[in-house]
Amino acid sequence: MADEDEHPAPEAEGIEDHSPLSRRLIARIMYALETNDREMLWAEMEPLHAADIADLLEQSNAYDRRRLIALYGQEFDGDILSELDDSIREEVINLLTPEVLAEAVRDLDSDDVVDLVEDLEDQQQEAILNALEDSERTLVQQSLTYPEYSAGRLMQREVVMAPEHWTVGDAIDFLRNAEELPEQFYHVILVDPRLHPVGNVTLGRIMAARRDVALREIMEETFHTIPVTRDEGDVAYMFNQYHLISAPVVDEEGRLVGVITIDDAMAVLDDEHEEDIMRLAGVGEGGLNDSVFETSKQRVPWLAVNLMTAILASAVIAVFEASIGQLVALAVLMPIVASMGGNAGTQSLTVAVRALATKDLTGSNVGRVLLRETLVGLINGLIFALVMGAVGRVWFGGPELGYVIAAAMVINLVVAGLAGAAIPVMMDRMGIDPALGSGTFVTTVTDVVGFFAFLGLATVFLV
Amino acid sequence: MADEDEHPAPEAEGIEDHSPLSRRLIARIMYALETNDREMLWAEMEPLHAADIADLLEQSNAYDRRRLIALYGQEFDGDILSELDDSIREEVINLLTPEVLAEAVRDLDSDDVVDLVEDLEDQQQEAILNALEDSERTLVQQSLTYPEYSAGRLMQREVVMAPEHWTVGDAIDFLRNAEELPEQFYHVILVDPRLHPVGNVTLGRIMAARRDVALREIMEETFHTIPVTRDEGDVAYMFNQYHLISAPVVDEEGRLVGVITIDDAMAVLDDEHEEDIMRLAGVGEGGLNDSVFETSKQRVPWLAVNLMTAILASAVIAVFEASIGQLVALAVLMPIVASMGGNAGTQSLTVAVRALATKDLTGSNVGRVLLRETLVGLINGLIFALVMGAVGRVWFGGPELGYVIAAAMVINLVVAGLAGAAIPVMMDRMGIDPALGSGTFVTTVTDVVGFFAFLGLATVFLV
Repeated sequence: MADEDEHPAPEAEGIEDHSPLSRRLIARIMYALETNDREMLWAEMEPLHAADIADLLEQSNAYDRRRLIALYGQEFDGDILSELDDSIREEVINLLTPEVLAEAVRDLDSDDVVDLVEDLEDQQQEAILNALEDSERTLVQQSLTYPEYSAGRLMQREVVMAPEHWTVGDAIDFLRNAEELPEQFYHVILVDPRLHPVGNVTLGRIMAARRDVALREIMEETFHTIPVTRDEGDVAYMFNQYHLISAPVVDEEGRLVGVITIDDAMAVLDDEHEEDIMRLAGVGEGGLNDSVFETSKQRVPWLAVNLMTAILASAVIAVFEASIGQLVALAVLMPIVASMGGNAGTQSLTVAVRALATKDLTGSNVGRVLLRETLVGLINGLIFALVMGAVGRVWFGGPELGYVIAAAMVINLVVAGLAGAAIPVMMDRMGIDPALGSGTFVTTVTDVVGFFAFLGLATVFLV
Repeated sequence: MADEDEHPAPEAEGIEDHSPLSRRLIARIMYALETNDREMLWAEMEPLHAADIADLLEQSNAYDRRRLIALYGQEFDGDILSELDDSIREEVINLLTPEVLAEAVRDLDSDDVVDLVEDLEDQQQEAILNALEDSERTLVQQSLTYPEYSAGRLMQREVVMAPEHWTVGDAIDFLRNAEELPEQFYHVILVDPRLHPVGNVTLGRIMAARRDVALREIMEETFHTIPVTRDEGDVAYMFNQYHLISAPVVDEEGRLVGVITIDDAMAVLDDEHEEDIMRLAGVGEGGLNDSVFETSKQRVPWLAVNLMTAILASAVIAVFEASIGQLVALAVLMPIVASMGGNAGTQSLTVAVRALATKDLTGSNVGRVLLRETLVGLINGLIFALVMGAVGRVWFGGPELGYVIAAAMVINLVVAGLAGAAIPVMMDRMGIDPALGSGTFVTTVTDVVGFFAFLGLATVFLV
């Protein structure tokens, strides 16, 4: 069954939308739901990949989702559960009949079952574990003993290995006679007698080599083993950095316990980016399918932090109430200095957070980067001091206000550059994710410094 | 040669730093440079992967980089060039002697050469093309005729294909007798007589099947072909969505012209994320290695846009100068309403931009998402209206100022939720990358609405 045989049909392709979930298809699926036409629903959904069906369920509202799952019935595949967003996974599992759930779960690889059950509540977890065969259940339960977000949770337990002294002929005979091989594998892992991995041989090289060639001679040059407790983010980084396709996972004694393949590492890389971008914006873990109240709850904490820092900035303004009372133009201009500082700080911050995530910013160049960001702040501060000085002068008549806003602009953009780079670096050194809330800290600094510099200089020189 | 044989040594592992570029190693490399000790440099750098050497060059300053490349000499590998960040690639190419450059480039696969030369200036491009063998040069020049960021630029030209009617035995005999096979390949692509791909067979299944089994019978279920002009971002999305390992690329007539493997798709996914996060922050394309002046130049445009929007917000304040003159507390409190709106707007915006990028936000659920974001804005607006109403009342004595700030907070957070989600959706519909500058537009809206609502209500009810 070629379920995704996307024969090229360039004429039918839009510019933007290559999604298999076309409006027309969704309309037909909805029609099948309305008319309770199971045959039609199956026919329409048959060409869809599990990932697309998961997207369809995510994009439906709760009512359609319930109807869809009920009508789709026993066709429901375990892979759909794997692909579903966490936020509706529990809901969907509860909608499945025990028989459909058991059938769906039994098809999955051990790593997919682990991914599925690790976030579920005890009752659902038990229902799924009970549906598995004994040997499979043991593998899954073993994996669950490793820490969350570790290589042990990510790895597949089914590995293809060979003694290091084997020849190509030995490997071919072994593979051709093997009772059961994993669904997807790309390498044969060479191991020493104590089960320590010593190298990877690609299937392509085994195919192409003479039977009497030793496997050791055609091992891949790049070879990494992954400790079972290694953080999954580091695993994704390794795959991306070294272009790995699969890598063996080893326990504390260095013995082979599993294998991680690049498709899982790619999914982790994607999740890590999601986390970074969400954390930078002060948004919690939530997805598009969370309810209004859940979403509100996720976002309140950072709004509360922001409120406190905004009150801090207001307190700085309050110090200069008398000056503002005498010269209201100060109230009009002060947000400009703060806003420019916030913007410049966010630029530096984002570059620093990203460089820390990709390990491009390290101990060896941190001094240079901090200096560069500060100098960029100085140059951009001077540029916008000129612009804003002129604007202030024209807008409010005299040159004095222009000088003050120009000076405050330079001060705030230099501070923005330095703080924007230094705050994430410090958070990283303290073992805190630099994406987490650093934006709020940096804008607090630029608000406070911006208001203080502008209003302070104005009070000294103008009022 | 197992150049990265990272034997597990858990006791030696730090919590944070798994980089092979340890401080100790860098110190030894620097010592080799100082003492001009080529043997020592080679020995120290021998275990490093090309990607790590590229990182080392990126993290060095320009002076050390020059010395390092000069001393490293003919050991310089083409893969290092592939791994280097664009910002210093030209510099490094200029530092290589023509012989070393030619030698380095000749080892690379066609897709890596394309990636290398596409951003170079004509003179450097020519130097590299001239170093290639004729057949290789033709392949590279063909690839360069495809649009930038298309599948055609990303694909490898070396493919392993078989007629669709072959059996496992035919494929094995073909592979074992092939003169030259690509360095990395995981599938045999089945093609019809007109060279249209009809399916993928993994090497693992070929190995495991009996010789008389037809290849068609063991094809993978999931099969996608990629049009050669497809945007590389869409390609990366497909690999991630469908867990592809490799996929054939076809021309306008649907004929097989190349193959894309997941490691390249993963690198694109990483780049796309980088672009999103940088664009959200209003930072240009630059890297950590750009000079101070280049960096300044990249960041000035969005700062200039921000200045204009900040002046717009100031103009709103200027309308209410008289009110502020009468009640200076307004100047103290007004940044709080604007800041909370900006923060809430950025939260909605980030969720929307990310959901658009992952194709989770589509025509079928956009109404629901906009409604949800607006309702979340309303709820959070009410929460912080209560808090800030109480703070305003205590801070400034009377209840009236508390009512006004509370009302302005609700208005601004509702607008923030709606605008934060709607602006990226509208940009996407217009074919503009929603990450590009949407942050500035959203905060402009929340600044203007925040100041206008707060100062306007205050003018009507308090002054």
